[in-house]
Amino acid sequence: MPPKTHLPKRPHIEKHFTSGEVVRDIVIGMADGLTVPFALAAGLSGAVESSSIIVTAGLAEIVAGSIAMGLGGYLAGKSDVEHYDSEYKREIYEIEKLLDHEKDEVMEILEGYGLTRTESTPIVDSLAARPKDFADFMMRFELGLEKPEPKRAMRSGATIGAAYIVGGLIPLAPYIIFVQAHRGLLWSVLITIVALFTFGYVKGTFTGTKAVKSGFQTCLIGSLAAAVAFVIARLISS
Amino acid sequence: MPPKTHLPKRPHIEKHFTSGEVVRDIVIGMADGLTVPFALAAGLSGAVESSSIIVTAGLAEIVAGSIAMGLGGYLAGKSDVEHYDSEYKREIYEIEKLLDHEKDEVMEILEGYGLTRTESTPIVDSLAARPKDFADFMMRFELGLEKPEPKRAMRSGATIGAAYIVGGLIPLAPYIIFVQAHRGLLWSVLITIVALFTFGYVKGTFTGTKAVKSGFQTCLIGSLAAAVAFVIARLISS
Repeated sequence: MPPKTHLPKRPHIEKHFTSGEVVRDIVIGMADGLTVPFALAAGLSGAVESSSIIVTAGLAEIVAGSIAMGLGGYLAGKSDVEHYDSEYKREIYEIEKLLDHEKDEVMEILEGYGLTRTESTPIVDSLAARPKDFADFMMRFELGLEKPEPKRAMRSGATIGAAYIVGGLIPLAPYIIFVQAHRGLLWSVLITIVALFTFGYVKGTFTGTKAVKSGFQTCLIGSLAAAVAFVIARLISS
Repeated sequence: MPPKTHLPKRPHIEKHFTSGEVVRDIVIGMADGLTVPFALAAGLSGAVESSSIIVTAGLAEIVAGSIAMGLGGYLAGKSDVEHYDSEYKREIYEIEKLLDHEKDEVMEILEGYGLTRTESTPIVDSLAARPKDFADFMMRFELGLEKPEPKRAMRSGATIGAAYIVGGLIPLAPYIIFVQAHRGLLWSVLITIVALFTFGYVKGTFTGTKAVKSGFQTCLIGSLAAAVAFVIARLISS
């Protein structure tokens, strides 16, 4: 892995590499957690009068969604590790058995950046003398792969799942409090719009997009999903 | 962008770069589409007798999920493009204004692969003479970013959303056919287990993990989510 050097004037890159992965997992889980249970509950309130069935469906959805996304994230993390390892072994193998071909590959890649063979030769020869460094170089440069941290998969899955639950309970809370579905819907819409905007805004500041724009976009997704779900559920049940 | 050279004996890499993005989008949409509506419907069938409310909730969920995931995928794609462009402008700016510092950065990165300053100098000087190539090199090597295709965002969002709908209708179909929820559940479990295994198997062959293992893992996620949702819904409604 190349050392990561940062200028103080590049705060977003520093952010990108330090808090990046946990934030990314929270964003993944919470984006869907805020949106889908919200839209499902809103949709059902277009079809039923009592909020009890909405709470049951909503909690079932939150459980299902958090397990699906959490376990999905865990397995994706594990498969990243396996993918990296198998590609790494392949690189090592090719460097041992097909060294000239691998050297040509690096030459061609560097030619893509306008470097001549004469300019590239010292680097390629130097890498060829150290197979491990050569393999690291190819992983990054030919395949664009970053070494994943093995312990990350479990943490990533748990973070995504928990964020989904937290996100999902926000739109559902009013239906737990109010017996009539339409009252639950009203409060759910109000607090979820605020939550979606806040979430989008914070997400925007972390990812480097414009915060207000990100807030509105996140609101739009949630509202559109909820509105269409409402119309569909009302059409089916009428 | 470096030219991508492939050996015939590296079929998985070729796959990775050609069909990769559409497959990835279908996998993202269908994994959740098969799992969450399945688990929600199974959960509700632990709480209600008639399948009509399950169909309403299921379709509302499919609509909500496909919009949330599809629009989410679209916006993520768009923000990738914006992120790449803003980082690229920053690199160009830094190369123009802080050339020596950027050259040092490349030197340090290459030192991480065991290259000496003498070995790296020809490449660094050559890149420094061509700002565009230098910026491309830094994007790939310092930041690990690949230039995203601008038109991909829309296609990606549509693919994810459509895959979610297709996936979601499979577990829901039996509830549309059978009036009694427990009959719908039985058939839903049967066809969804088959669908999850098939999906996981095909996904495994595309991503290079072991196909059978991938099939079982996908089944496990869906079944676990459905079982827990069933238990939760039954506990709430009793």
